[in-house]
Amino acid sequence: MGSTWGNKLKLSIFGESHGEGIGAVIDGLPAGIDIDLIRVQHELNRRAARGNPLATPRKEGDQVEILSGVFNGKTTGAPLAGLIRNENTRSGDYSKTKDLMRPGHADYASSIRYKGFQDYRGGGHFSGRLTAPLVFAGAIAKEVLRAIQPEISIGSRIVAIGGIKDGAIAHWKEYQDLIKGFKNPAFPLYTPDLEEAMKHEIIAAMEEHDSVGGIVEGFVTGLKPGIGNPFFESIESRLSSLLFSIPAVKGVTFGDGFEIAAKRGSQANDFLRISDHKIETVTNNNGGINGGISNGMPIVFQVAFKPTPSIGKEQQTINLAEKKEALLKIEGRHDPCIVIRAFPVVEAATAICMADFLI
Amino acid sequence: MGSTWGNKLKLSIFGESHGEGIGAVIDGLPAGIDIDLIRVQHELNRRAARGNPLATPRKEGDQVEILSGVFNGKTTGAPLAGLIRNENTRSGDYSKTKDLMRPGHADYASSIRYKGFQDYRGGGHFSGRLTAPLVFAGAIAKEVLRAIQPEISIGSRIVAIGGIKDGAIAHWKEYQDLIKGFKNPAFPLYTPDLEEAMKHEIIAAMEEHDSVGGIVEGFVTGLKPGIGNPFFESIESRLSSLLFSIPAVKGVTFGDGFEIAAKRGSQANDFLRISDHKIETVTNNNGGINGGISNGMPIVFQVAFKPTPSIGKEQQTINLAEKKEALLKIEGRHDPCIVIRAFPVVEAATAICMADFLI
Amino acid sequence: MGSTWGNKLKLSIFGESHGEGIGAVIDGLPAGIDIDLIRVQHELNRRAARGNPLATPRKEGDQVEILSGVFNGKTTGAPLAGLIRNENTRSGDYSKTKDLMRPGHADYASSIRYKGFQDYRGGGHFSGRLTAPLVFAGAIAKEVLRAIQPEISIGSRIVAIGGIKDGAIAHWKEYQDLIKGFKNPAFPLYTPDLEEAMKHEIIAAMEEHDSVGGIVEGFVTGLKPGIGNPFFESIESRLSSLLFSIPAVKGVTFGDGFEIAAKRGSQANDFLRISDHKIETVTNNNGGINGGISNGMPIVFQVAFKPTPSIGKEQQTINLAEKKEALLKIEGRHDPCIVIRAFPVVEAATAICMADFLI
Amino acid sequence: MGSTWGNKLKLSIFGESHGEGIGAVIDGLPAGIDIDLIRVQHELNRRAARGNPLATPRKEGDQVEILSGVFNGKTTGAPLAGLIRNENTRSGDYSKTKDLMRPGHADYASSIRYKGFQDYRGGGHFSGRLTAPLVFAGAIAKEVLRAIQPEISIGSRIVAIGGIKDGAIAHWKEYQDLIKGFKNPAFPLYTPDLEEAMKHEIIAAMEEHDSVGGIVEGFVTGLKPGIGNPFFESIESRLSSLLFSIPAVKGVTFGDGFEIAAKRGSQANDFLRISDHKIETVTNNNGGINGGISNGMPIVFQVAFKPTPSIGKEQQTINLAEKKEALLKIEGRHDPCIVIRAFPVVEAATAICMADFLI
Repeated sequence: MGSTWGNKLKLSIFGESHGEGIGAVIDGLPAGIDIDLIRVQHELNRRAARGNPLATPRKEGDQVEILSGVFNGKTTGAPLAGLIRNENTRSGDYSKTKDLMRPGHADYASSIRYKGFQDYRGGGHFSGRLTAPLVFAGAIAKEVLRAIQPEISIGSRIVAIGGIKDGAIAHWKEYQDLIKGFKNPAFPLYTPDLEEAMKHEIIAAMEEHDSVGGIVEGFVTGLKPGIGNPFFESIESRLSSLLFSIPAVKGVTFGDGFEIAAKRGSQANDFLRISDHKIETVTNNNGGINGGISNGMPIVFQVAFKPTPSIGKEQQTINLAEKKEALLKIEGRHDPCIVIRAFPVVEAATAICMADFLI
Repeated sequence: MGSTWGNKLKLSIFGESHGEGIGAVIDGLPAGIDIDLIRVQHELNRRAARGNPLATPRKEGDQVEILSGVFNGKTTGAPLAGLIRNENTRSGDYSKTKDLMRPGHADYASSIRYKGFQDYRGGGHFSGRLTAPLVFAGAIAKEVLRAIQPEISIGSRIVAIGGIKDGAIAHWKEYQDLIKGFKNPAFPLYTPDLEEAMKHEIIAAMEEHDSVGGIVEGFVTGLKPGIGNPFFESIESRLSSLLFSIPAVKGVTFGDGFEIAAKRGSQANDFLRISDHKIETVTNNNGGINGGISNGMPIVFQVAFKPTPSIGKEQQTINLAEKKEALLKIEGRHDPCIVIRAFPVVEAATAICMADFLI
Repeated sequence: MGSTWGNKLKLSIFGESHGEGIGAVIDGLPAGIDIDLIRVQHELNRRAARGNPLATPRKEGDQVEILSGVFNGKTTGAPLAGLIRNENTRSGDYSKTKDLMRPGHADYASSIRYKGFQDYRGGGHFSGRLTAPLVFAGAIAKEVLRAIQPEISIGSRIVAIGGIKDGAIAHWKEYQDLIKGFKNPAFPLYTPDLEEAMKHEIIAAMEEHDSVGGIVEGFVTGLKPGIGNPFFESIESRLSSLLFSIPAVKGVTFGDGFEIAAKRGSQANDFLRISDHKIETVTNNNGGINGGISNGMPIVFQVAFKPTPSIGKEQQTINLAEKKEALLKIEGRHDPCIVIRAFPVVEAATAICMADFLI
Repeated sequence: MGSTWGNKLKLSIFGESHGEGIGAVIDGLPAGIDIDLIRVQHELNRRAARGNPLATPRKEGDQVEILSGVFNGKTTGAPLAGLIRNENTRSGDYSKTKDLMRPGHADYASSIRYKGFQDYRGGGHFSGRLTAPLVFAGAIAKEVLRAIQPEISIGSRIVAIGGIKDGAIAHWKEYQDLIKGFKNPAFPLYTPDLEEAMKHEIIAAMEEHDSVGGIVEGFVTGLKPGIGNPFFESIESRLSSLLFSIPAVKGVTFGDGFEIAAKRGSQANDFLRISDHKIETVTNNNGGINGGISNGMPIVFQVAFKPTPSIGKEQQTINLAEKKEALLKIEGRHDPCIVIRAFPVVEAATAICMADFLI
């Protein structure tokens, strides 16, 4: 329970970190959508961050095989299933520490939830590796959006790595340009000069066998006004339910988020005007959403990622089998900062959400 | 679409601000649960904030009539329907300004979404008044929890009003006491001395025909470990989908939220220990949730409310019918700060979410 | 659990036979649909069969009050809630026999399911009275279909009452005329001459303090080809899930139903042809559905209703409280044949199903 | 859309007849359930009817690979995904006849539904081959039921092949024995002497390049009373939605089905009695269900299968691309009677439904 999402789309993700494979089934796609496998694989490669020295060295091929739902290069309207075989899974690494609950991980909570029957190897179904099926589904959703609403663009940027924080976008009209191309697409920044400082933050943590968190901002431009619903099916409700599905996410805000709480109404309200015969708002403090429904401005939201819980530093924990306290150093090298691999996942979640609203 | 929520519970809310009535139908309740109508009405009264000079003077009786699903004071297992008749609706106030899109409201987005057929009076279905059915449903959910998991307590506190901010709870064990009783339950503060400054913030905004936002913290104590699911049915995903349904909410965080993003893994991870033969974590930076599943610590989350968009100050907007710019002063008195009425709604959403997980 | 249905529509019905009221909430309706309250009430009156000497004499006003979702005579797009107050409920009739499980009723099954907390008065939520909210929802669905697919017509006929059986429609093209008007709309027959014999069957049962069952055929003409889905969301799956929701239904077939099982493929297959530049089938043995999807022919299905379980004849049963056998004569007068009130319910279920597919 | 089902279980099936593979993902399974792969494969083999000269000679290995959700032989609680690779797919057979709409098949309806983009090879997603993932899911569901409700047994029998019909079970207590073992499990009959006549019926049709339909009866013994819900989540509604998902099914009845419609209430009602301190009914005309909820008697239902639409006889049809009439002889050998392979599918659907109610 928990791995199925959607209203018009039905997305089902499956797999464990060290099982046979991981994948996704997407039901409800329109028929006749071109699926460009190179673009789809490119999204998976962005997540894998292959070759990035700051990312985990686990060699994840992440080659996806489409099992169904595509015929002659186009969707058939039947469920589209994609499978990524697991490779390089060294399960031996995990069995000896399976009773040591890794702090910050799902180990303890899932051991209770599944009475000890969960696949503990590498976090099992809770592994960050399960973001690959999400990215696959997002890549398919992007193909759908490209076909049915080509004016929509989905992008993301790194707002913060540890203590280094980039600023707010000066005006909502800049998102359109930003989305077209970052100076370094593998490290998308509004202020490219911060790249070095941010990377230094990651390296500093890595050298101390520690990790850092960060913030990603996602955005959607070109979304027509009038998309979304009140209450439980608002853009905020639907999108947050997907964003909080991404492992390590602890906060989601729209528009000015927590800063809007300190404002006066006269500062927070986005005044309306007519510019070039088009209705727009002057500011975009509400992140393009009022009453759960798009107002035609860019959808803007921020996502807080906690630092990777797997660290080499010694930590206090318990041995669940023996019911006693223990010390733990997590061996092997892990991502010192998930953020540099997480922004494509944020985009994928966004694409899935938008496709579910728009098909 | 949008007003139905739930997996095991099926909640359907209905109504418009100035229609015949508002209400909720809750399907899936267990049979045999005592429903104490005085407690239920008390929750509605908390939301109504009757008598509070800082709240809107619209005299909302909010007397709920239970139409079905309760027999001899107990749930029957059949759908429980509650109806609150609208009173004191002065619809004449609204028709003359119906084409003026109120900034910060759903007026423009919903006009496009519903092609102008929405009930525009007082925001119609988008009105904050629709939080009354949510609170009703939450009150029923609290009755369910009281019966099936009496060790669970749900509480909330005001963390910020405009620029005045209360601090973090020093240790997670304090939540248990906090929940038992605030100095002023109508203005629940961890630091009661801040009440005057916060109220002053509201009055200052009101005097300038403006409004202020704020932050509410919700918490659940006594929740067993092992509740929740990975991914889309995580506690975070499910609870955030409800919290973002509350009008004016623009941010939801769990545990340390955005602050955790600036931390190192060694600071963010909650170390585990055994205390009094019970497993617990030393800190609670993850807000009681790992991998979407409860870990036995208090569930803690913060919710950012924007300032009430209805303000008396002159605002720039458009007349949608005439497609031209206009100025707008919203007449009548409105809540200068929704936060003082919103914390019971946060609790209601939390109770609904917990009941859906636990029944 | 169980009283909520729909994908694009979300229908929630509530109420008990002798509670405050019964009703329905329908979320997901398009905005701007004309709601003609006279037509809506007419559907409820058809079900009530007021004035029909063969129907139960309980004076059910069944006046529906629309609480929300309609503004200026049109749907707003917000949930449409309708309430029918219960009248003439003589609860005293029921308390003395509450422990006697009425054979053929839900009494025993629901007593176990709800641990004795169900509202036992008149069957509570299991009462045939709950078909009134279904008919209300169906009437709203008919308004929607009238607006968005005016070429669709939904009709029904009585095929059998007890042992008296009407024949098959000679050719599928006749459905269009049939739907336009039956000789006696209150007793819709393909062979009107059978009316007397069927009524005699009912009277004969009534005179023996017994009841009879029957068969209703529902049909939809004007449905475009290509509506529906494979497998679990086929027209058959969706429609049968609604039809089996109607109390007393024990069988649902499409097209030739069980008779098709005795045929050869060459007899059962509907050959295709082009007539007047339109694609059609020669026969309609498949009831307008192939692979779960409409093929442009009339959708035709039959529904078996068991005899009303409430009869005056002495029956063997148990006293559940005392755990011993007992004899039971159900007092009062009940419908000797539910079929004459059930065909509008079959149409309502059909309309709800079609609206869910087509909006 | 259409290939996802379930409340507590979430089942997603995928695949096309001639694509890479077919399979199913099942989310929501409890953790710790033993999965016996030999039993699972046995169910798939029953459907494949390998070696049966009356079944299609397509060599379907139907070896299932479990990709996730099972660890050390037990369910983990994470989604269980199973994949069956397609083999022996001779796609060349199909491309030349793709524009000829096969009567009785989904060809025409799905061509409109999916605008011609559906995978037309062998029926694509509409192929009877997709019953293999259903049977796989049913086999997993049987493992779940075996663990959590071992007293439940699920069985089925052939009631009719073409014009040869077996009789009703004399008394509901016989189902328990029947389920324990049929004389010929590959041809399960209440009256084994009918096997020859039924096989003759199939051979006669085959020799004329034709096919025959038939009827399957499914049953569940050992189900406790009180399982199920009213209305849309009744056992009848849920189970029929699955049974009508099976290709070729045109009718579903519970208990006496259409025959109950001709009865009097006094004949149709199942009187209650106490036998050996247990509550039971004398007869079981209602098929073990009242008000949608089990009453402790065997659940009994019948399913009508139409004759295989693929026949060698010449049929009248249309060429959709050329929009003109055409004649069609379907080449190759197809199942002359699907019934002899369908009864394990009926059991699978039943097991899935029961597991969804009971987990």
